[in-house]
Amino acid sequence: MGNRNSVASPASGQTRDSANPGSPAALDASKLSMTLAKTLKPLQSIETLRFGQSFSDHMIVATYDPEMGWSAPEVKPYGPITLDPQCSCFQYGGNVFEGMKAYLGPDGKARLFRPDMNMRRMEKSCARLALPPIDGDVVLELIKRLVNVERRWIPKESGYSLYIRPTLMMYKHSPDWNVGLGVTASDHAMLYILASPTGPYFSKPVSLLAVSENVRAWPGGTGGHKVAGNYSPGFLPQRAAAEKGYDQILWLFGDDRRVTEAGAMNFFVVVKRDDEDGVDLITAPLDGTILPGVTRASCLALANDPEFHKEISVRLHPQEMVYTMSDLAKWSSEGKLLEALAIGTAVIVGPCNRIGFEGKDIVIPGDEMGPIGTAIRKKILDIQEGRTEWKGWGVVCT
Amino acid sequence: MGNRNSVASPASGQTRDSANPGSPAALDASKLSMTLAKTLKPLQSIETLRFGQSFSDHMIVATYDPEMGWSAPEVKPYGPITLDPQCSCFQYGGNVFEGMKAYLGPDGKARLFRPDMNMRRMEKSCARLALPPIDGDVVLELIKRLVNVERRWIPKESGYSLYIRPTLMMYKHSPDWNVGLGVTASDHAMLYILASPTGPYFSKPVSLLAVSENVRAWPGGTGGHKVAGNYSPGFLPQRAAAEKGYDQILWLFGDDRRVTEAGAMNFFVVVKRDDEDGVDLITAPLDGTILPGVTRASCLALANDPEFHKEISVRLHPQEMVYTMSDLAKWSSEGKLLEALAIGTAVIVGPCNRIGFEGKDIVIPGDEMGPIGTAIRKKILDIQEGRTEWKGWGVVCT
Repeated sequence: MGNRNSVASPASGQTRDSANPGSPAALDASKLSMTLAKTLKPLQSIETLRFGQSFSDHMIVATYDPEMGWSAPEVKPYGPITLDPQCSCFQYGGNVFEGMKAYLGPDGKARLFRPDMNMRRMEKSCARLALPPIDGDVVLELIKRLVNVERRWIPKESGYSLYIRPTLMMYKHSPDWNVGLGVTASDHAMLYILASPTGPYFSKPVSLLAVSENVRAWPGGTGGHKVAGNYSPGFLPQRAAAEKGYDQILWLFGDDRRVTEAGAMNFFVVVKRDDEDGVDLITAPLDGTILPGVTRASCLALANDPEFHKEISVRLHPQEMVYTMSDLAKWSSEGKLLEALAIGTAVIVGPCNRIGFEGKDIVIPGDEMGPIGTAIRKKILDIQEGRTEWKGWGVVCT
Repeated sequence: MGNRNSVASPASGQTRDSANPGSPAALDASKLSMTLAKTLKPLQSIETLRFGQSFSDHMIVATYDPEMGWSAPEVKPYGPITLDPQCSCFQYGGNVFEGMKAYLGPDGKARLFRPDMNMRRMEKSCARLALPPIDGDVVLELIKRLVNVERRWIPKESGYSLYIRPTLMMYKHSPDWNVGLGVTASDHAMLYILASPTGPYFSKPVSLLAVSENVRAWPGGTGGHKVAGNYSPGFLPQRAAAEKGYDQILWLFGDDRRVTEAGAMNFFVVVKRDDEDGVDLITAPLDGTILPGVTRASCLALANDPEFHKEISVRLHPQEMVYTMSDLAKWSSEGKLLEALAIGTAVIVGPCNRIGFEGKDIVIPGDEMGPIGTAIRKKILDIQEGRTEWKGWGVVCT
C-alpha cells in the first residue's frame, strides 16, 4: 500500500521503495506481473467437480524478504513450488490459509462473499504465528485479479463456484541469521493463491460422532485462527469416526462436554423456544476455541435481522452460548431439537441427521435439511450468486 | 522389513514386493541407492557452528505411495524439494519430525543416543496424524547409513555433534482419489533425513518467562507427540518474552498454573528434601501435554539409579508430578529451589537462572549450572560421546 514510488528489479522480482529506501517494500497489487500458461487445461464437466479437487491454470505467488520486503506478485502457471527441506513450513507448521468462493452472477459478474472478513482473519492468523504482517486489502485485490484471469473456470451452475485458497507460510531464514532449525519464526514468507472449480461439499445429511477424547482446540491455543496445524490432528479421529459409520466429528470440549465445531466447520442447532416466539439458532461463542467463520457470522447476522425474519416469516433468535451434549440430549428428548447444521465456506449450510454420543444416537427429525437451514442457505446462496443485493456482502471482482 | 524378495523399478524408484504382489512395499534400508554430490562443501570451523544452522552434503529421501508402498530410499545431494502447492503439508500441517545427535567417540566410532526411543516416538507421531505407518527400525538403519556417509561432518570436539533431523510429511493425494483440499489425511508421504553439524544450543544460564495466556498443549491435543503444528504457535509468545528480556518461555497449564515445558524443551527443578536424604528431581508427568523427551527419560532413569547416585555421591529422587508456580515460589522462598534445568536433545541439560511470573522473578541461586545439572549433563555427554558404556544407551553406527 502507498508504494507507488517503488522501483522493481526485474532480475529478482524484488522491489524497493525508492521514496523510503530503508523500509522493506509493501505487498503491492499494482506491481502484479503476468506469466500466462502456454496451453490452457480443458474445463471439467460440471458433474465431476468435487470440493478442492482440481485447479485452474494459474496461481499468484509473492515472496517476502525481511530486507527487500515483498516481491512483485506474479500470476504464473499453476505448478509445483521448490523449497529447502529445512523450511519452517515443513518443520514447525508456520502456515496459515483462507478459503473463499467466487461465483458468477446472472449479470455475468464474478462475486466474492464478504471477502473483507476472510482478509481480516488472515491478518490475525499471520500475526498469531508471527508471520510477516500482510495487508489483507492488497491480498484481496490480488484475489480479484486471479478471479478475473481465471474467469472461464467459474462454473455458471448454482451451487458451483471457483474456490480460492490463499496460503501464507514461512519458508526460510536469512542465511546470515544463525537460526536454521532453531525453533523460532523464520523471516522469509511465501504467499500463494490457488483457484479450484468446485461443486457441492456434501448435499445429503451427514452423521456426526461426538468426540471428547481428542480435543480440537483449547483456550490459549490457536483454534480461533486459521492455521495449518489445527487440521491434521483431526485426521485420525475422523478416520475412527468413519470406521464407526459417521461422516464427521462433533468436537466437544471440557468435562461438561461442550459442543464446539463439526469437522472443520462451525455447528449450529435450531431449537424450539418455550415462548413459541420463533426458534433459537444456537452456536458456541468465540472464546478462542471456535473458528470465527464468515458463514457463521453471516448466519448470526441474518438471524438477528428483522428484514430476513419477514422474508422467511419466522422469528429467529441468534444465541452464541455455551451448550453441552446434555443440553442437546434434553432438547432432543423434549422434541425441541429441530435442526442441526454444519456451517462453513465449503458447505455453506449443510444438514446433520444424527449425532452419536456414548453409544447412542441423537436423531434429528426429517430426511432433508429443515426449513431454517434451507432458508438460510437459500438466502446466502442468493447473495453469493448475485441474485440478491444484501448489505454489501456480495463483492464484485472488478 | 522382510522385503528381501522385492524388485526395484529403476525408472520410478518405486518397488513392489514380488513375493506378495498385492501389498505395498515396506521401507527397506537394503534398497538404499547412493547419488553422491559431485563437489563436497568445505567443513565449517568449529567456532561458527550453531544449532541446526548448516547442513551436510547429503540427505536421504524416500516417498510412500499407497499402491506401490515405499520407494527405494536414496542418498542424494542436500537440496530443495519440489511439491504441489495444494499439498497437505502446506495446508493442514500433516508433518512430524525427530531430533537426535551423532557423536564421534574417542574410539573413532560414531554413536547415536538411545535412538530406539526417537524411533518409537516417531512411529507414534505418524500414527497420531494418520500418516502412513513407518518401521522405526528401518528409519534408524537409514539414519546410521547417513551418519556413515557424512562421517567427516561429525565434529570431534566435545559438546559438538551431527544433529539428525528425520521428517515425515503428507505431500499429496492420489489423483483418482477425489480429495484435493478436502480436510482429510492424504495418502502419499515423503520421508527425508537431514544432517547438520551442530554446536552447543546455549551454554549460559537462560531466563524464563512463565506464560499462561498462551497454552502450548492440552489433554486430547498433540502436545505429547512431535508434530510440526505444536511449534509455530510458540513463536509469537517467544518473541513477546524476548521483548520483556527473557530468553525462553515457561509454559503453564490450567487455572492452578501448572509448570509444563520450557520453550521446546522439558523442564526439571532440583528441590531440597525435608528429610535431607539427597534432593528431588521434579518434572511434569506425561499426561499428554508433555513431550516424552529422550533426554527427559534418561535424566529420570539416572536419578533412579543407585549406581549413578554412588558416582555422584548424592541420592536423587525422581518425581514425575504435577507442580505449580505457587510450589516454585514456595520452594524458592524457603531456600529449597536449588536448580532449574531445561532438558532436551539440542540443549542436553541447560541451566535456568530466573523465572518471571506476574511481574516478579523467581531467582535460582548461582551464576552457573548447579552440581546436579552439571553431573547429569556430564554423565549423559560421557555416554553420548562414547567415553562411558552405560546400559546400551550409546548405539554405534555400524
